[in-house]
Amino acid sequence: IEAGDSARLHALLDPLHPADVADLLEQLDQRERRALLSLWRGGVDGEVLSELDESLREEIIEALPPGELALAVRDLETDDVVDIVEDLDAEGQEAVLGALAAADRIAVEKALAYPEYSAGRLMQAEVVRVPEYWTVGEAIDFLRSGVDLPDQFYHVILVDPRLKPVGYVTLGRILSSPRSTRLRDITEDSFRTVHVRDEEGTVAHVFNKYHLISVPVVDDDDRLVGVITIDDAMTVLDEEHEEDYLALAGVDETSIGDRVWETAKRRFRWLLVTLIAANVAAQVIAQFEATIEQIVLLAVLMPIVASMAGNAGTQAVATAVRALATRDLNPSNALRVVRREIGVGLVNGFAFGAIMGLVVLIFFHEPMIGLVIAVALWITLTLASLGGVLVPLTLNRFGIDPAVASGPFVTTVTDIVGFFVFLGIATMVLL
Amino acid sequence: IEAGDSARLHALLDPLHPADVADLLEQLDQRERRALLSLWRGGVDGEVLSELDESLREEIIEALPPGELALAVRDLETDDVVDIVEDLDAEGQEAVLGALAAADRIAVEKALAYPEYSAGRLMQAEVVRVPEYWTVGEAIDFLRSGVDLPDQFYHVILVDPRLKPVGYVTLGRILSSPRSTRLRDITEDSFRTVHVRDEEGTVAHVFNKYHLISVPVVDDDDRLVGVITIDDAMTVLDEEHEEDYLALAGVDETSIGDRVWETAKRRFRWLLVTLIAANVAAQVIAQFEATIEQIVLLAVLMPIVASMAGNAGTQAVATAVRALATRDLNPSNALRVVRREIGVGLVNGFAFGAIMGLVVLIFFHEPMIGLVIAVALWITLTLASLGGVLVPLTLNRFGIDPAVASGPFVTTVTDIVGFFVFLGIATMVLL
Repeated sequence: IEAGDSARLHALLDPLHPADVADLLEQLDQRERRALLSLWRGGVDGEVLSELDESLREEIIEALPPGELALAVRDLETDDVVDIVEDLDAEGQEAVLGALAAADRIAVEKALAYPEYSAGRLMQAEVVRVPEYWTVGEAIDFLRSGVDLPDQFYHVILVDPRLKPVGYVTLGRILSSPRSTRLRDITEDSFRTVHVRDEEGTVAHVFNKYHLISVPVVDDDDRLVGVITIDDAMTVLDEEHEEDYLALAGVDETSIGDRVWETAKRRFRWLLVTLIAANVAAQVIAQFEATIEQIVLLAVLMPIVASMAGNAGTQAVATAVRALATRDLNPSNALRVVRREIGVGLVNGFAFGAIMGLVVLIFFHEPMIGLVIAVALWITLTLASLGGVLVPLTLNRFGIDPAVASGPFVTTVTDIVGFFVFLGIATMVLL
Repeated sequence: IEAGDSARLHALLDPLHPADVADLLEQLDQRERRALLSLWRGGVDGEVLSELDESLREEIIEALPPGELALAVRDLETDDVVDIVEDLDAEGQEAVLGALAAADRIAVEKALAYPEYSAGRLMQAEVVRVPEYWTVGEAIDFLRSGVDLPDQFYHVILVDPRLKPVGYVTLGRILSSPRSTRLRDITEDSFRTVHVRDEEGTVAHVFNKYHLISVPVVDDDDRLVGVITIDDAMTVLDEEHEEDYLALAGVDETSIGDRVWETAKRRFRWLLVTLIAANVAAQVIAQFEATIEQIVLLAVLMPIVASMAGNAGTQAVATAVRALATRDLNPSNALRVVRREIGVGLVNGFAFGAIMGLVVLIFFHEPMIGLVIAVALWITLTLASLGGVLVPLTLNRFGIDPAVASGPFVTTVTDIVGFFVFLGIATMVLL
C-alpha cells in the first residue's frame, strides 16, 4: 500500500480516529513514516498531533510545511496547543505560535508562563461562564445566541461581578429545569476550584476523589481563568501512574518507539546507582572474607537473606508510595503506619526465619547456622519493612517525590543491611 | 469532640463531601469509628458508603440498622449499588437488595449476573435515549418533560427502533443548536460502544485513548443496556494502576486501614515465592562451593552480578508490562521490541561489564577475575533484558495478566542465572 497510492491512503486513513492515526504513526519505523507523511498531504491535523508521543511529535512537526501546521493547530483548544508547544524547541514554538489567531496566541503564551506540570498548563482558556444571578432561561438564551462555545463543556460556571467562580450547574440540570429557576439554586454540591499553580497530580487526585467532570481554575485573586476537564485529568493520572510504575523498576520515562541507544541511556542511570550500591555491599562482604573462607555455606546462604530483605523492603516501599499518592497516608496516621510496618516485619521475619532455619537444619544439618540465618532474617526483614516505609515518608517530607527515588535504592540498601547482619551474627556466633 | 456531643458532630460532618467523610472514617481506629457511628445517626448515606474502602464498608453496613441502610442506598445510581453489593456476603446482599425499589432491584440483580470486572458491573442502567430521527427541539422537550433523569449525564444517546445505539449528541451541542436541527446531523465523531462483557480495564483504556466522557454499553443483540461514565472509568484506571504497581513489588491488594496480621498475610505469598527461588539460587551457588573455597573474592563479587541482573530484568519487565497495558506493544511490533531489548542488554551489559572489570583490576589487582565479571555481566544483563520482555509477552499470550506475575519472579530468576553464569565462567577460567 505504501507504494505510492495517495488516494487509496486518504481513503484508508481519513476515517480513522486521530488516536488511531497517531498509534499507526508510532508503529511505523522512521523511513516508512516519512513515506507515509509525504503521500498523506494534509492528513495530519491538530488532533493527530496532540495524540502523538512527544518524541515523535517533534519529528513530525518539523516535517510539516508551515502552512499545513498553521491549519493543523488552529482548531485545537488552547490546552492542547500548550501541550504540543511546551515540548518543542524555540524554533518549533515560534512556528506554531505564529500560526495561531492573536487571541489564542495570547492565551497559549499566558499558559506557558505557568510552571510546568501546573494546573495553568493543563487548563483550557475557553470557559462558559454566566453571572450568578441569571436564571435557567437566560443561560439557555445565552448558549443559543451563537457565542463561540468550547468543543466540549459539561457545566456552566457561575461567577460573581469580580469574576470569582461561585458554583456551577450541569447542562443536564439546565435542560431539565424550568426557565424561571435561578441558576444558583441548582448548583452542584461537588463544586470546588483549583489554583492555577496547583500541581497537576494534585488536580488529578481531586478529580478522582470527588468524581468531578470539570474544575474551574482561579488565579491569585480568585478570578476564573480557565477550566480543566476530566479527560485531561485522566491523562495526567495515567502518566503519573506510568512514571511511578517505571520508577519502581528504575526506568526513566520511556517510549516504545525509542531506539536501542536512547533506551539504554534511559536505563543507565539507575543501573549505575545499583552498581555503586552493589559495590558497597561487596565491601561489606569483603570485611567477612575470613569468616566465609572458613564456612563456605555462608556464601551459599547470604543471597537468600538479601533477596528476602529486598522483597520485603520493596513491598513496604510500594505500599507507602501508593498510600502517600492517594493521601491515605498523612501526618495524622504516619506513626500508626510505621508501627504497623514494624509489626509486619516482625511477623513475616519470624515466620521466614523459622522456615529457613528448619531448611538449613534439615538439609544441611547445621543447627547453629540455621539459628544464625533465622535470627538474621528476623532482624533484616523487620529493618527492611521499617526502612521501606521511612524512606518514602522522609523523601515526601522534604518535598521529593518518593516514587522516583525509592525503588532500586531500597533493594540495594537492604542488600547491604542483609549481608552485614547475616555475616556479622555468623562471625560473632560461629567463630 | 467524640465525648458525646451528637449535635456538634452533625454540625461538623454534615457539610463535608462524602469522600471526605469516608476518608475520616478510614483514619479512625475501630473503637473510635463505632463511637462516631452511634453518635452520628442518619449521617451515613449511600454516597459515603460507596466512597468507603471495601474492608470498612462491610463493617459499617453491618453496624447500620436496616431502616437506615434502606434509606442510604435508595438514592444511588444502580452502578454504585452494584459496587457496594458485590463485595458483601449473602446476608448483607439480601439486606441491601431488599431495601431497593423493585425496578432498581431488578437492574442490580441483572448487573450482578455479569462477570466480575466486566462493563456490565460498571455501567448504570439509567440512560437518556431518544429515537434517532428526533430533532433538537423534540429532545429538549423530552428532557424538560419531567422524566426521571440520571444525576449526571453528558450525552443523549440515539437509538434505532431495535434499541441499537447509533450515535450520541452532547448536551452542549443540543443547547447551542437550533430546535429544528436533526440530532443525527450533530452526533459526535468519537462515538463508540462497548460490550457488556468487555473487561473493565479495556473499557478504561478506550476512555483514555479516545478522550470519551461516556460510553453506551450493548448486549449480545447490540441493544443498549446501560452507560458507563468517565468518572467510573477513571476509578477503574486508578485501581488497575494500583494493582500493577503493587504487583511489581510483590504485594497483593492492600489498604492502609489493614492491621498487622492481615498485611503480613497479604505479603506472605510473594515472600514465599522469593524464598523458594532464593533457595534454588543457593543450590546453584552450592554447586560451586569448591570454587568459592579457593577464591573467596568470588563470594564477595557475586551479589553485584545478581543485583545488576535483577535491576536490568525489572527495567525490561516494567517497560514491557506498561507497553502491553497501553497496547503500544502488540504482535505487530513484538519482534522489534524483543530485538531492541537484546540490543539494550548488549549495550548496557558491555558498559557495566567494562566498568566492573576495571574496578576489580584496579582495586583488587585481579585481572582474570575482572575479565570473568566483565563477561558475566555482559551475558547476564543481555539475558535479563531478553527474559524481562519475553516473560510478560508469554504470559500475555496465554491470557495471564503480565503485571501480576512478572515482578519478583524475574528478579529471583535473574539471581539464579547471574550466579550460574558468573560462578560457571569463573570455574572454567580460573581453576
